[in-house]
Amino acid sequence: MTDDTAPSPVRLKAVAGPGQPDPNPALEALYRGFEAELLVPLWTEIGDLMPKHPRSKAMPHLWRWDRLLELAGEAGRIVPVGRGGERRAIALANPGLGGRPFATPTLWAAIQYLMPGENAPEHRHTQHAFRFVVEGEGVWTVVNGDPVRMSRGDFLPQAGWNWHSHHNAATAPMAWIDGLDIPFSYLTESQFFEFGRERVASSEMGTPDRSRSERLWGHPGLRPLSQPESPSATPLLAYRWVDTDRALADQLALEAEGHAGTMSPGHAAVRFTNPSTGRDVLPTIRTEMHRIKCGASTVKRQEVGSSVFQVFEGSGTVKVGEREWSVKRGDMFVVPSWAPFSAQCDTSATCLDLFRFSDSPIFEALNAHRSTTIDGSSTLEARG
Amino acid sequence: MTDDTAPSPVRLKAVAGPGQPDPNPALEALYRGFEAELLVPLWTEIGDLMPKHPRSKAMPHLWRWDRLLELAGEAGRIVPVGRGGERRAIALANPGLGGRPFATPTLWAAIQYLMPGENAPEHRHTQHAFRFVVEGEGVWTVVNGDPVRMSRGDFLPQAGWNWHSHHNAATAPMAWIDGLDIPFSYLTESQFFEFGRERVASSEMGTPDRSRSERLWGHPGLRPLSQPESPSATPLLAYRWVDTDRALADQLALEAEGHAGTMSPGHAAVRFTNPSTGRDVLPTIRTEMHRIKCGASTVKRQEVGSSVFQVFEGSGTVKVGEREWSVKRGDMFVVPSWAPFSAQCDTSATCLDLFRFSDSPIFEALNAHRSTTIDGSSTLEARG
Amino acid sequence: MTDDTAPSPVRLKAVAGPGQPDPNPALEALYRGFEAELLVPLWTEIGDLMPKHPRSKAMPHLWRWDRLLELAGEAGRIVPVGRGGERRAIALANPGLGGRPFATPTLWAAIQYLMPGENAPEHRHTQHAFRFVVEGEGVWTVVNGDPVRMSRGDFLPQAGWNWHSHHNAATAPMAWIDGLDIPFSYLTESQFFEFGRERVASSEMGTPDRSRSERLWGHPGLRPLSQPESPSATPLLAYRWVDTDRALADQLALEAEGHAGTMSPGHAAVRFTNPSTGRDVLPTIRTEMHRIKCGASTVKRQEVGSSVFQVFEGSGTVKVGEREWSVKRGDMFVVPSWAPFSAQCDTSATCLDLFRFSDSPIFEALNAHRSTTIDGSSTLEARG
Amino acid sequence: MTDDTAPSPVRLKAVAGPGQPDPNPALEALYRGFEAELLVPLWTEIGDLMPKHPRSKAMPHLWRWDRLLELAGEAGRIVPVGRGGERRAIALANPGLGGRPFATPTLWAAIQYLMPGENAPEHRHTQHAFRFVVEGEGVWTVVNGDPVRMSRGDFLPQAGWNWHSHHNAATAPMAWIDGLDIPFSYLTESQFFEFGRERVASSEMGTPDRSRSERLWGHPGLRPLSQPESPSATPLLAYRWVDTDRALADQLALEAEGHAGTMSPGHAAVRFTNPSTGRDVLPTIRTEMHRIKCGASTVKRQEVGSSVFQVFEGSGTVKVGEREWSVKRGDMFVVPSWAPFSAQCDTSATCLDLFRFSDSPIFEALNAHRSTTIDGSSTLEARG
Repeated sequence: MTDDTAPSPVRLKAVAGPGQPDPNPALEALYRGFEAELLVPLWTEIGDLMPKHPRSKAMPHLWRWDRLLELAGEAGRIVPVGRGGERRAIALANPGLGGRPFATPTLWAAIQYLMPGENAPEHRHTQHAFRFVVEGEGVWTVVNGDPVRMSRGDFLPQAGWNWHSHHNAATAPMAWIDGLDIPFSYLTESQFFEFGRERVASSEMGTPDRSRSERLWGHPGLRPLSQPESPSATPLLAYRWVDTDRALADQLALEAEGHAGTMSPGHAAVRFTNPSTGRDVLPTIRTEMHRIKCGASTVKRQEVGSSVFQVFEGSGTVKVGEREWSVKRGDMFVVPSWAPFSAQCDTSATCLDLFRFSDSPIFEALNAHRSTTIDGSSTLEARG
Repeated sequence: MTDDTAPSPVRLKAVAGPGQPDPNPALEALYRGFEAELLVPLWTEIGDLMPKHPRSKAMPHLWRWDRLLELAGEAGRIVPVGRGGERRAIALANPGLGGRPFATPTLWAAIQYLMPGENAPEHRHTQHAFRFVVEGEGVWTVVNGDPVRMSRGDFLPQAGWNWHSHHNAATAPMAWIDGLDIPFSYLTESQFFEFGRERVASSEMGTPDRSRSERLWGHPGLRPLSQPESPSATPLLAYRWVDTDRALADQLALEAEGHAGTMSPGHAAVRFTNPSTGRDVLPTIRTEMHRIKCGASTVKRQEVGSSVFQVFEGSGTVKVGEREWSVKRGDMFVVPSWAPFSAQCDTSATCLDLFRFSDSPIFEALNAHRSTTIDGSSTLEARG
Repeated sequence: MTDDTAPSPVRLKAVAGPGQPDPNPALEALYRGFEAELLVPLWTEIGDLMPKHPRSKAMPHLWRWDRLLELAGEAGRIVPVGRGGERRAIALANPGLGGRPFATPTLWAAIQYLMPGENAPEHRHTQHAFRFVVEGEGVWTVVNGDPVRMSRGDFLPQAGWNWHSHHNAATAPMAWIDGLDIPFSYLTESQFFEFGRERVASSEMGTPDRSRSERLWGHPGLRPLSQPESPSATPLLAYRWVDTDRALADQLALEAEGHAGTMSPGHAAVRFTNPSTGRDVLPTIRTEMHRIKCGASTVKRQEVGSSVFQVFEGSGTVKVGEREWSVKRGDMFVVPSWAPFSAQCDTSATCLDLFRFSDSPIFEALNAHRSTTIDGSSTLEARG
Repeated sequence: MTDDTAPSPVRLKAVAGPGQPDPNPALEALYRGFEAELLVPLWTEIGDLMPKHPRSKAMPHLWRWDRLLELAGEAGRIVPVGRGGERRAIALANPGLGGRPFATPTLWAAIQYLMPGENAPEHRHTQHAFRFVVEGEGVWTVVNGDPVRMSRGDFLPQAGWNWHSHHNAATAPMAWIDGLDIPFSYLTESQFFEFGRERVASSEMGTPDRSRSERLWGHPGLRPLSQPESPSATPLLAYRWVDTDRALADQLALEAEGHAGTMSPGHAAVRFTNPSTGRDVLPTIRTEMHRIKCGASTVKRQEVGSSVFQVFEGSGTVKVGEREWSVKRGDMFVVPSWAPFSAQCDTSATCLDLFRFSDSPIFEALNAHRSTTIDGSSTLEARG
């Protein structure tokens, strides 16, 4: 961690090159003047600051689930969870981002681990978060007093500034992944945090099958009239695998019957949305589930903004920029901004299911989103 | 500039402390495992990453206009302007931001300088920009073929991805300030850049008093029916001082007559807005002009997001966090995120006019804006 | 039907009264001058045109389902369905609206009836429509080639300008209700209509259990990525009773467990919404299902705009303005603008389920919505 | 006026015709059954209710300004203005609309007349209104205590539910036109009305050159920070002729210099907009000023919704459907929904300036707007 209190100096060096003034004593003197006044000329920086297209500091990288799980399990054994550290969460540190716990310049991705009977204490923060469960069960996340079950395939969004805690009501440890916009909040310096109650009411430690939020908001196209609008983030706290799976299967079945429904042949996809607006579940994070059927591929695509993927089921090959990996259940990888991405399902697998989250809503909200498929059609998208 | 190709290692150290696991060999082994797999636990980072409120890396800092102008003039004499370096722009480097040309974590602020007869070559970029003229005249900015005059007090917004160049048609050098969202685009890796024509058509090198954009869009409350909507950024390319000055004077006159109109006693303010939407001129940058009358002060306030100010006229005292400066025409200073800010006009001055730009639209678009006055009322604002 | 080609004269009569000029020869002469020039003074009309609050021409009225069904069945026997007449639909004519087929000044409500093997021909119109099925089954509505099953309790919205036809694939007749904004379109003169194909492709005459629209859009909170946005009207063509029933039951169960969820004690309600926006299914028509449990009542309420209700299940008492009726399955009634309304479930019934449609979205879109509960709190609502 | 309390019977007659069932005794019996139950079948009504495109009941019609002024002046002499009648306003009664004071099915247009020293009493209503001044001066409209001057060419919007009165501070009578959405509010039964104070405070009877609203909101692109947002209607209470005239002249000058700016050759146009949103000044009424230069014409066009025009200056020929008139200053005419419209400036006139108001915002808000130019391009417009 850097010492925040020491001012950092400006260092300038006159070097010959295209677009650069020829080094000479007057230029050196000018640069010393700039340094003294904390000034930096554009002409020495423009190549890095204003590239022709995004050139991410983040690198494509893959983390293997078995190693993540092994280390998280070891942490479960020797690192207690409680107030102060708050969560037994272990974050992916992109090799291009200076050893910081940033999966991408905007996104945090971590494996969280809770031992039987453990509680992760209540707090709230303006950072937006979600949980996704690749395997296991037994933990409930309590959001503003509403316990939400976590099981394989479930997606639990968690909008900023809601009180939440976790408790493991089972006899086995449980792991899941957390996604947040911590790096974005950190870089833009816009975050708030508060500790919650030391002890959550026992009435909130229940283990119901369905949360109250699901009973109110989990019915397709039906808005509960008693509930206020929820424009900025979803009021639905769990998206169950049974629904997601059926939606993906329906798309592939429609394709098989000759109807529109898939993104491209063999590629089905859904976005998790706020039922009160139809928009992304969180203001800063987009979340989707993709299913690529046996032997099929996605269209190669690049877009502004970064993504993190986790393989939910099946096996296949993914290409990110110049990198290519064989992947299987639980593996996580990063697609940096503007890096071309495609995925293919193995011919030996029924399908390749990929959970994806990205920072696209940030760019759409600011009219800065752009994407292109490599075979061609580019779009400079505006928000509707 | 860092070498982008070398992966950065993770370095973890077990240290005793509140919320930290006790150092021991098992923990050390675990940390070595984390390092090998590029993982970082939350518990060692949470204090820095998730503070109770924004704690900016940026520092309050003041740049004196006479020094900026002196160094820019020296650059005018020895550094040519042309393709490659693109602009003779010299950026404020906040002392807390590692020597990079970032006034704040999201905003770029620079003095630009053009010698008589010089041209700054045509280009375009997705970064949003504006010019503000504290003194001088003689330069026209040509935007998509429309030459826009620049004179003292004028504000010229420049939405991303529009072709633009500058030419000095006068016999004296001219300086002005540029504001852009370069750091934000850089950190979120969302920027595109293109070089334009080597030579702008002579028909575009005119020096009209009013630009075509002003003749179409510069009439209060009147939309030209022939023009398309312009939802994401303003179609009006110049906001003239005569209008801004009159609007501020009207507010103080209304106050003097006993009517509402000012922000607080003696403090008038206008925001530059897109006439086709009434919203900010640019998706990522808010721009305002404030007038504090003789002896009056603003209410002390803190808000999420950072600002850069330039004194347009008058003299006074500004307080930013723990810092306090006497300021006069042209001086520029930075207000970091959540740092308390207030300003007072000298009793010897008619008024203190402050031009301000900030990154507030980013936070409003993402429902993350929050502000408070120090005497009390806090708001967690949502975008309507 | 009026003869559209004959101009209608203005007729004015000078009468004494508050706010009226005293009758005298000069006034009479003035009024003759007004008549000759097709002019009408405000002062003779203001009481009718600008009342203190809405005073509807429409009257509260009840239509009994058994009579509707009987007459529709008789029509089924003697009136053929086909091109020209287009639909065997029989509309409610509010007794206050001049014998026109207008349930309210803005809404059309009709019973439609289709004999076994019959087809209602394909057409499209800009008027927005829906079907609601109080009992029966066997008909499919084909929307742009997508056959949609109609069964008891199902709600089928039908946005304007989509091709549609109906066919009865069963061995018994079937009845349902149609709701449209025909009167609103008629009064504002904004409607278009087109005949479709003489014969729908046999591939479109299928009888699938689920429509393609449901397979794409009928999963809670999940947006199919292959589908375009649908901002103005819902892409989901059927809302099934199983979902609606469960949502209402969940609200009452939450209430029973001590949690928020109902509108008022014993009163559950859901609104049918566009899953791509969370807003009303149609730009001009709001649709809801209300469940009042045994012995419970709704809060008495009045609001701008008119509603039509149909009893879906159970029995109870409804009060509309000065009128009061005992109602049971299928009965339909009208609540005029600003008429106080409440409903109570019989103590002998499990619940009273009321399907409701109204013109509220028109007023919300134009910032003219207002509602109040009789015990008090008034709101002048603005659209978010 | 109809007696609102007597229910109106349904009258049905079996007649032979395309799409109609053959008359026979069973059909007659069925129709008697329908009548008894207040039911009307679609098949007898569909031609009138669901035409292929809008067929307006309203007729194209022209009112001459000299006659309007003459009759209004006569009313000024013999009809007092005061509480009860409220306004000396005389409305255009479209010959197709049953002698009611409706210029079109949705719009009210009237000439209002105030004698020297007279006051029109304070009231408020939810109907949206505006004033437009074709000639004269001397009256101030006081809106929520803010006196607004009315002079030739000025446009004064008046959003619903604001208190307002008028007073003539001059020594001559003054006339102007009022536009409101009275018919729309009446037909949709959504209106509220309240009487105001018997006597407006003398401090509100001032005659300032500029209103407070203009001093706050009348500066191009500048939003006063002290003022709340005003999303549903404009906070600017006067649009002055000097600005409107200059905006139109600028467009024609741009055209003359070879630049884009006009609608079509010689046809300049501006829309009056809410400076806080860029949208229409009122939720239900669009207002525009058009200038056709000497000898030029507009493109023939038809659109959903109705318009009322007043000639502000110059002379020319206007075509509405099958009608054609020579028009000059002050003349008013109606363009019904979907009626083709074009206008041409006389070769003897400098220009033809047309003030126009229409109900387009209603249709845009409801996604029902559609327009086409007769030479071709049709659009089914959606609101952005």
